[in-house]
Amino acid sequence: MPYDRLDKDIKMMQDAGINIVRIAESTWSTMEPQEGVFDFSHIDRVLNAMHKAGISVMIGIPTYAVPTWLVKKHPDVLAITPRGQNQYGPRQNMDITNVHFRAAAEKMIRKMMEHIKGHPAIIGYQVDNETKPYQTSGPNVQAQFVAYMKQKYPSLDELNKVFGLDYWSNRINIWEDFPSVNGSINASLNAEFAKFQRSLVTEFLGWQAKIVREYKKPEQFITQNFDFDWKGYSYGIQTEVDHFAVAKVLDVAGVDIYHPSQDKLTGAEISFGGDVTRSMKNGQNYLVIETEAQGFAEWVPYPGQLRLQAFSHLASGADMVSYWHWHSIHNSAETYWKGLLSHDFEPNVTYMEAKTIGADFKKLGAKLVDLKKKNDVAILFSNEALTAYNSFGPGNYNAILRPMYDALYNMNVGVDFIDPSSTDIEKYKLIVVPALYAAPDALLQRLNAFVKNGGHVLYTFKSGFADENNKVRNTIQPGIINEACGITYSEFTVPVQIPLKGDPFKVGAENNKAEKWMELITPTTAKVLAWYDHPAWGKYAAVTQNKYGKGLATYVGFGTNDALNDKILQTVVKDASLWGKDQELKFPLIAKSGVNRNGKTIRYYFNYSAEAKTFAYPHKKGMSLLNNTKIEAQSQINLPAWGFEIIEEL
Amino acid sequence: MPYDRLDKDIKMMQDAGINIVRIAESTWSTMEPQEGVFDFSHIDRVLNAMHKAGISVMIGIPTYAVPTWLVKKHPDVLAITPRGQNQYGPRQNMDITNVHFRAAAEKMIRKMMEHIKGHPAIIGYQVDNETKPYQTSGPNVQAQFVAYMKQKYPSLDELNKVFGLDYWSNRINIWEDFPSVNGSINASLNAEFAKFQRSLVTEFLGWQAKIVREYKKPEQFITQNFDFDWKGYSYGIQTEVDHFAVAKVLDVAGVDIYHPSQDKLTGAEISFGGDVTRSMKNGQNYLVIETEAQGFAEWVPYPGQLRLQAFSHLASGADMVSYWHWHSIHNSAETYWKGLLSHDFEPNVTYMEAKTIGADFKKLGAKLVDLKKKNDVAILFSNEALTAYNSFGPGNYNAILRPMYDALYNMNVGVDFIDPSSTDIEKYKLIVVPALYAAPDALLQRLNAFVKNGGHVLYTFKSGFADENNKVRNTIQPGIINEACGITYSEFTVPVQIPLKGDPFKVGAENNKAEKWMELITPTTAKVLAWYDHPAWGKYAAVTQNKYGKGLATYVGFGTNDALNDKILQTVVKDASLWGKDQELKFPLIAKSGVNRNGKTIRYYFNYSAEAKTFAYPHKKGMSLLNNTKIEAQSQINLPAWGFEIIEEL
Amino acid sequence: MPYDRLDKDIKMMQDAGINIVRIAESTWSTMEPQEGVFDFSHIDRVLNAMHKAGISVMIGIPTYAVPTWLVKKHPDVLAITPRGQNQYGPRQNMDITNVHFRAAAEKMIRKMMEHIKGHPAIIGYQVDNETKPYQTSGPNVQAQFVAYMKQKYPSLDELNKVFGLDYWSNRINIWEDFPSVNGSINASLNAEFAKFQRSLVTEFLGWQAKIVREYKKPEQFITQNFDFDWKGYSYGIQTEVDHFAVAKVLDVAGVDIYHPSQDKLTGAEISFGGDVTRSMKNGQNYLVIETEAQGFAEWVPYPGQLRLQAFSHLASGADMVSYWHWHSIHNSAETYWKGLLSHDFEPNVTYMEAKTIGADFKKLGAKLVDLKKKNDVAILFSNEALTAYNSFGPGNYNAILRPMYDALYNMNVGVDFIDPSSTDIEKYKLIVVPALYAAPDALLQRLNAFVKNGGHVLYTFKSGFADENNKVRNTIQPGIINEACGITYSEFTVPVQIPLKGDPFKVGAENNKAEKWMELITPTTAKVLAWYDHPAWGKYAAVTQNKYGKGLATYVGFGTNDALNDKILQTVVKDASLWGKDQELKFPLIAKSGVNRNGKTIRYYFNYSAEAKTFAYPHKKGMSLLNNTKIEAQSQINLPAWGFEIIEEL
Repeated sequence: MPYDRLDKDIKMMQDAGINIVRIAESTWSTMEPQEGVFDFSHIDRVLNAMHKAGISVMIGIPTYAVPTWLVKKHPDVLAITPRGQNQYGPRQNMDITNVHFRAAAEKMIRKMMEHIKGHPAIIGYQVDNETKPYQTSGPNVQAQFVAYMKQKYPSLDELNKVFGLDYWSNRINIWEDFPSVNGSINASLNAEFAKFQRSLVTEFLGWQAKIVREYKKPEQFITQNFDFDWKGYSYGIQTEVDHFAVAKVLDVAGVDIYHPSQDKLTGAEISFGGDVTRSMKNGQNYLVIETEAQGFAEWVPYPGQLRLQAFSHLASGADMVSYWHWHSIHNSAETYWKGLLSHDFEPNVTYMEAKTIGADFKKLGAKLVDLKKKNDVAILFSNEALTAYNSFGPGNYNAILRPMYDALYNMNVGVDFIDPSSTDIEKYKLIVVPALYAAPDALLQRLNAFVKNGGHVLYTFKSGFADENNKVRNTIQPGIINEACGITYSEFTVPVQIPLKGDPFKVGAENNKAEKWMELITPTTAKVLAWYDHPAWGKYAAVTQNKYGKGLATYVGFGTNDALNDKILQTVVKDASLWGKDQELKFPLIAKSGVNRNGKTIRYYFNYSAEAKTFAYPHKKGMSLLNNTKIEAQSQINLPAWGFEIIEEL
Repeated sequence: MPYDRLDKDIKMMQDAGINIVRIAESTWSTMEPQEGVFDFSHIDRVLNAMHKAGISVMIGIPTYAVPTWLVKKHPDVLAITPRGQNQYGPRQNMDITNVHFRAAAEKMIRKMMEHIKGHPAIIGYQVDNETKPYQTSGPNVQAQFVAYMKQKYPSLDELNKVFGLDYWSNRINIWEDFPSVNGSINASLNAEFAKFQRSLVTEFLGWQAKIVREYKKPEQFITQNFDFDWKGYSYGIQTEVDHFAVAKVLDVAGVDIYHPSQDKLTGAEISFGGDVTRSMKNGQNYLVIETEAQGFAEWVPYPGQLRLQAFSHLASGADMVSYWHWHSIHNSAETYWKGLLSHDFEPNVTYMEAKTIGADFKKLGAKLVDLKKKNDVAILFSNEALTAYNSFGPGNYNAILRPMYDALYNMNVGVDFIDPSSTDIEKYKLIVVPALYAAPDALLQRLNAFVKNGGHVLYTFKSGFADENNKVRNTIQPGIINEACGITYSEFTVPVQIPLKGDPFKVGAENNKAEKWMELITPTTAKVLAWYDHPAWGKYAAVTQNKYGKGLATYVGFGTNDALNDKILQTVVKDASLWGKDQELKFPLIAKSGVNRNGKTIRYYFNYSAEAKTFAYPHKKGMSLLNNTKIEAQSQINLPAWGFEIIEEL
Repeated sequence: MPYDRLDKDIKMMQDAGINIVRIAESTWSTMEPQEGVFDFSHIDRVLNAMHKAGISVMIGIPTYAVPTWLVKKHPDVLAITPRGQNQYGPRQNMDITNVHFRAAAEKMIRKMMEHIKGHPAIIGYQVDNETKPYQTSGPNVQAQFVAYMKQKYPSLDELNKVFGLDYWSNRINIWEDFPSVNGSINASLNAEFAKFQRSLVTEFLGWQAKIVREYKKPEQFITQNFDFDWKGYSYGIQTEVDHFAVAKVLDVAGVDIYHPSQDKLTGAEISFGGDVTRSMKNGQNYLVIETEAQGFAEWVPYPGQLRLQAFSHLASGADMVSYWHWHSIHNSAETYWKGLLSHDFEPNVTYMEAKTIGADFKKLGAKLVDLKKKNDVAILFSNEALTAYNSFGPGNYNAILRPMYDALYNMNVGVDFIDPSSTDIEKYKLIVVPALYAAPDALLQRLNAFVKNGGHVLYTFKSGFADENNKVRNTIQPGIINEACGITYSEFTVPVQIPLKGDPFKVGAENNKAEKWMELITPTTAKVLAWYDHPAWGKYAAVTQNKYGKGLATYVGFGTNDALNDKILQTVVKDASLWGKDQELKFPLIAKSGVNRNGKTIRYYFNYSAEAKTFAYPHKKGMSLLNNTKIEAQSQINLPAWGFEIIEEL
């Protein structure tokens, strides 16, 4: 802080209805300026002031940026990655398995917890922040990996076989010869190492949560601030962390969601991030620990957008919306990233709009919090398939998954996420399976059974291709699921804009084409929904649908575009009898709903566009919570640009 | 292999007419799982099975991928390159000069040769695979280079002078001061180091061939699997290996040729690779050790293409066509690269087409094998000019050479390749010389003499520019060849699409322009075929032609495009009186011919297009070997899409 | 040299009127082939020959390329940079602070100076060449930096505070913990390190000049060959050197200026480089130590361009025009860079045109040399703002500064450059301030006072944003200058081609748009010259102008294009009453003027285009110095393509 203004900040927070702050994160060097020398005065001061002001505090355990003295004393704290050893400076540069890092961190955490544990302002704890393995892969990590492999594969012969290590003379005949994986070209080994690195995060956060749990009060929660695969914004499934595994050691899932704004604001990332996070703990509500206020310069919200975003988070099941950060930072790296306040700390238009959100949360919170959702559609993702697919492409896994998600979002179909560890997939009516490149037999057989028992599945190309060790199946493709899908293929190629015969999905010449990838599919029992239109490939199917048992399996053998995705998803949603009233609306009119604590159905309608929109309210009579007026069924609802309506069914 | 299926594989090979396989390559770690522990059982098993099935075996000496134990024991086996020391994992990561690598390799080769040498299935040996220096340039290689330089330049003063080392204070005054060349900016030194690195490959393969020769039977051959400058496919002259020098230690030249397919299949790479490889040993027939079956996903052949390709190889003088690889690999790095069989090992459309090739080879092989060619046109390439040109550009050497080759290919002119070591260049009528940036006086004088004695030469810009040490000549440019060319220039510039005056080659406005480079040429005795059209440069010549003695020297002073290349090459081919009947056809109708073992002329006509083509057969009456029908002179031949005809003259 | 031709070279130089050469630069290894073994014979030989021929010699102190033996003996001479330790080979690879480098260099310089100091041919000395810190940042440099920081910030608490080091746990609590800055993400620290690195250059050249000064004769000058931010040519303010600081240790400023040519020749770089260099020593005339003759292949001059360039240098205040280099180099790295002579040493068209320049310089030199200029407009640049701006963007500092300079150049407004160290900025009528991202309070207050006292200032966006430590101001933006500008802003965004309301500068729809950056400005007392045209941002100002005291402050809040720049600069030039007769002409007609030694006004008119141009001479009667004819006021002057006229007012 350039100057002391705590009281003024708290006053402005209170004016804006802010009732929770996160502190301490990333302040290790301030809290322990020299080894063993602790100074918690700045934490005490803020805790006391917040408590006095009635604002709750979440404590961020400050382990994701290490102090100078620690690195000076133990340079091995800095991770060795395939690009060499990290340098001091950035956050997230340490080896999270390093013994000196762990020892120093534990000492600091215990001292801090001991000091603050009784403070009444504290509502919960966030262990570390946006944790990853940070590509740590130095000799000590390689040794841990070998130990892990020894346990998993007691027989080296077995390992050589399932990983195909004879290839290019990579065979390992005694454990002592195990080379560093950093140079490996064996995709099975690399995928296993990636999985091992994800397990390091699970272990590290479990270790940290365990320590915190020794001190915390029962009513205080432990969370983590998860983040997503980053493409300039929160884009897709996180590649480096097994979110579902880590979530098991937490009391509540937390997340940061950053997204394009201004004319590019669609709400898709808010919905996607929310659906993933809500699914981590089986539908339990979650915390949005960080989202943008002004954010990047190109994200400064248009009037109304900040409100639209905040209520969209609630509509996906969030129980908190928290901005990163309160004010803009004056030094160091991220001065360009603007908080609620600008560098001048003055009330600005973003802050003024935030005040209206705070006021509405206060007024309506009890009716909106803890929204429960029951979805009939799930997307099956897999960290293992993601790693495997990204080794070979085409493109990357999230670029297959996200467009399928977005197509469902655009047609207002509520979605859960499941992964191979999920135990209750049978409750869904439709499971969408993008690019399940690597999967164990059991998972594919389970999906076959799901169809046989009446479920619907939509697969994309490359699903079933390899086993859990990234070994390409030597059986008929698509591996195992060919049974439910009623198709087979043996060759595949890369289409240069090859049309589908007769534009079967009515998307027009511009969109009616296969791109990126195409499997040359021969139906066995499947009905063909689309054929390729090409002199050489015209005898092969592009999209098929197969009745199998009581269910239906749809298979898309090529790279689609948004227009085709929309139509294909529409087809499967309709085939699964899931087409309802909200599906008649479509983006930019976004409908979300759920049931609140009182058992009432809450319906949100968002206008994600710069033009005003009108539509006929398609459900039972309700109350507009924002306006406190009755809304009759079929009455016209007018939403201004970037506006929204919240209806509690009567 | 995911499971044992040797008998089934052999059965399928026999069905496809496959009569040779290559094995053992890249299996060091399987054959010698621990130092000194050998296990040849998998080789024995395959040799015996193949022998029983009547299939010959080529043994690949497996030195291009090193086992884990060797690197564990001797980490210095991994080459140090300008980017640091290589990591374990990939093939081709070793220092081929390393003593520990050599000792271990020799021990393994001798053990293996001792074990297998008597086996009747073995037809020949391939030493290493696609060998390169792999940029090895660590301290030991630098020391070898200094020793090499000491021998070549006993006087450091002389070295400093011819390499111009005074520049930027790079002078070396005692040998002990010789710095690592890795950081050098001296293009003479860098070119000499590149040449030295090429010599390491020649020495290494010679060493390996010598060992194998101690054991092999006289009737068994030794070959290498050469490859080409890679641009996503086999594109141009190999920069890192002196193919002509290595070929001297081999009995027969072998090569891998990979090329675009589907709509991009032209046959040019098959022809180019074949012409280079056939020229390595003065017209001796060669082996296509690897070429694509399904290959990359984007290369899966259209119906007919696999056949077209196979016979195109024969038409260039190949005596073998072998696919890499039999089946698609299930693990590691190259699972995306498809063999004849897919991962499922089932007969697929590619395999089915291969069966027809095998059947035709069996039927017609005796008439098609050992095709001898006599060409009047040669392209003079030079590894030294290539290195030198690529240091300075514009663009790269192969991007000058290949378009000139392709223009000749497109007009069905048969071509040999010669290099500065070639001894019988005088037998040609036309020599095409692309970008001969660096060359000794003697070579240029020899080319002058060739013209004087009645030969035709076509030069491009930059020819004669520097001497063999990459020192720019301080005489009139183009150096030495100005005598035969009757021109001079002193300045050069980069044209921004400058037209040639009056479109002299009738290529239309779009193509009538100089690009990339232009020399400001003043003719002395030459006739000007084209002038630049430009206010400042209009007084300079772009293309000239000079009568010199009994011959003609044509010089192109600027960067051409395909249209200009075609016309310029057409001009020189006609001027050299080499325009014949097959030149009236042109791509996509490709004509190839030669004389078979029985002294009969064999004529191939290929249709490299997706449309059927008809043409009048322009030669003497013959027999269609595929259809066993008579073909009269001037009769119409119809070729389907991707079809071809083979005619034996009567 | 490929052969000895000194006498011939000198004869050709004399023919061309060349009366000065630079030698010895970069020849350390020739002069001291082994440690302590000196050989000055080649220098003696040239000095004697030049003296005999009446040609003066500038000695380049050859320290910017180190000999092989020095690196062999002291490998630490090679700088350690963030990418590791440099390799031997290139020039400018050493650590200029290294004790072994300094000791060896000093010994060599003293030996050389002792040997040559009395030679009558020597006119002056150039210390080193194009000196930079070369990113030296190894442990010894880090230690020096810590020492520098200790002195600057006796209190670490203060340092932690002003640099904001608490962020991401970067706090330094004892000096011993100070980490290498190479990995730092703290922009304040990085900017301070960049400043420290610039100071290394100042110290190094001061040290070298001091040694030379001990030996040189009083009438001999000391200079340096400065160069500019390089974008394929001399583009903008040098980021790595504080030119104004270094100039204090020199007797005269020297510079190299390289620029696009042929159709891209505009003269802008000649003018820009000249204005910067002339400003280094407060208007003192300067030396063009290097500029292109033929240069890169794409720079070979059209007829007339070499002359046009030479006289343009004089018109900006140069007292020397020297080509790099005499002849083209035959070896090593820069063979592609052509000198006055080509590699063949023959008289060529470039040399022939140079002869006419030499003849005219001889004839007119006394009237043209020592041209004094008095400009009312200055551009305020800052190395600190440059470093800071380039950390955050958008784009880079020179891409903001150069277009503003070019707009003034195109309207024939003479410009000086000033920096924060300049003491007499009050003499200007208009100061243009591009992107002054980081500046101390005092500088901004001084600019406020400048306006208050009647001055005009034009600011671009981001000016005043941060203090001298790169800490974003926590006061109203634009920091401090909001007082003179009469505006305020708190938020900023990135425009996607947002128009200005009503095209206020009449630039047409294509150009009427904000790009790259836009501040959302609210005027307090300012008049708004342009508003944004946008549903959300339409209430914010884009360009404002404020009367403040007796002066006027104009502020441009967004990223402009050339068309808008021209109009905005025109507005401020007119508002400052600086619009004169030469401003009615415009590029490609370039007018320059000054007063010669005799107090006469010299006026240059250059035609920077390929078309002949005619204009009415707008000043007092004068004499054409080239033609020795009278030119009446308002008489028509005809300039051929790339032609020019020089008029001495009567």
